[in-house]
Amino acid sequence: MLALYHFGPVANSLTPLLCLLEKGAAFDSHALDSRKWEHHDPAFRAINPAGTVPVLVHDGRVVRESTVIAEYLEDVLPGPRLRPEDPWQRAEMRVLTKYVDEHVCPALTVIGAHAAAPFAARIDKAEMARRLAMMPDEDVRRKWATVSEGGYPEDELADARRRLGGCIARLEGQLADGRDWLLGEAYSLADIKWYSMAAALPRVAPENCNVGAAPGFAGWLERMAARPAVAALAGYAPRR
Amino acid sequence: MLALYHFGPVANSLTPLLCLLEKGAAFDSHALDSRKWEHHDPAFRAINPAGTVPVLVHDGRVVRESTVIAEYLEDVLPGPRLRPEDPWQRAEMRVLTKYVDEHVCPALTVIGAHAAAPFAARIDKAEMARRLAMMPDEDVRRKWATVSEGGYPEDELADARRRLGGCIARLEGQLADGRDWLLGEAYSLADIKWYSMAAALPRVAPENCNVGAAPGFAGWLERMAARPAVAALAGYAPRR
Repeated sequence: MLALYHFGPVANSLTPLLCLLEKGAAFDSHALDSRKWEHHDPAFRAINPAGTVPVLVHDGRVVRESTVIAEYLEDVLPGPRLRPEDPWQRAEMRVLTKYVDEHVCPALTVIGAHAAAPFAARIDKAEMARRLAMMPDEDVRRKWATVSEGGYPEDELADARRRLGGCIARLEGQLADGRDWLLGEAYSLADIKWYSMAAALPRVAPENCNVGAAPGFAGWLERMAARPAVAALAGYAPRR
Repeated sequence: MLALYHFGPVANSLTPLLCLLEKGAAFDSHALDSRKWEHHDPAFRAINPAGTVPVLVHDGRVVRESTVIAEYLEDVLPGPRLRPEDPWQRAEMRVLTKYVDEHVCPALTVIGAHAAAPFAARIDKAEMARRLAMMPDEDVRRKWATVSEGGYPEDELADARRRLGGCIARLEGQLADGRDWLLGEAYSLADIKWYSMAAALPRVAPENCNVGAAPGFAGWLERMAARPAVAALAGYAPRR
């Protein structure tokens, strides 16, 4: 029995969703609405006290963190291999997924949270204070406190945009030899993890992320979008 | 043929060193002197253009990033298992190693870099400018530029110390049930990865990291120090 709690096919939730779809695995899909703070509700906190999403529940055992879930699914499920057998290729894959967690994600978090300032501004102040008090992680609470006060200062936003530009250059460099997928011939968790963040980039960073500035990246995004599993992601958005 | 390029038994370099020693593996040890910037020299950049340390070279193939190297050594070497066979325990291990990379390491980097400000202040300004220009990574260059101008502002340092306090509480919570090792009975890469950063904490954060404030942590540090492989680390410091 597999169940996935997720926010739909975006950011960290996209990774395990796409892994499950690529593998053709049967799973119960629980789409949480982040704008209703469903991940901070007691019902979800009973599953993951940290209140982070996504979460996989497999035969009663809880697995957290999208990158860890992706490797776990490789460890336990049959279906197409998304992790190379060769140990060195596997290491290269892990360098690439780790880079997303340590560089792409923090930069996009600042930009994405800042973009949520208008949403936060519409929330009643007492309600926001109540929501902040319910957040289990201090860094998440501080982020939302910043967002509810109008967002990040310009120098922090500029630094996040600079760092994101470096990430896009890193991806473009990886694809510079004309390869189809990030590791070369074999589609892998490296593609899935990068796509989880990169799918939004043409919208978030159009100046760095267009076919002229990053042609390798643009071609790779098209190949990703053409995969049946990627097309199927649209069916997993939370109902609003 | 295995060769490890490292800075001695500290921080990220400690992880693969300790893995190799626990496994009793034969390897060529290349201790680089970070204070002589040997990792930015062309000789090392020929091995790792990114100029990051540690680096493992195995039969001519280069593996980077301490956490990735640790998993790679599990994938290719015999010797005592440092990664659980059970997929769920393995996932728990990865959550713990990932936490060190994403939370402990960034907080300690700010504190450790700031502590290097007196060292940086003794470097001739023209020489420092030349060194900065040789740094391949923009974030590393910015860090050293900050350090060479006296270090981080007090609010950034205070935030790093607050985050580090959260990391110590996280480790103490993991050990709260009286277990010997972070995953329970089995010593693993989770212990090794945490130790790579935690060994310095009683000195860096004595207010949070003492036997009164964090008794579980203190006992675990003693068990780590009692391991023969940990005692053997002292032989791998760069000669100065």
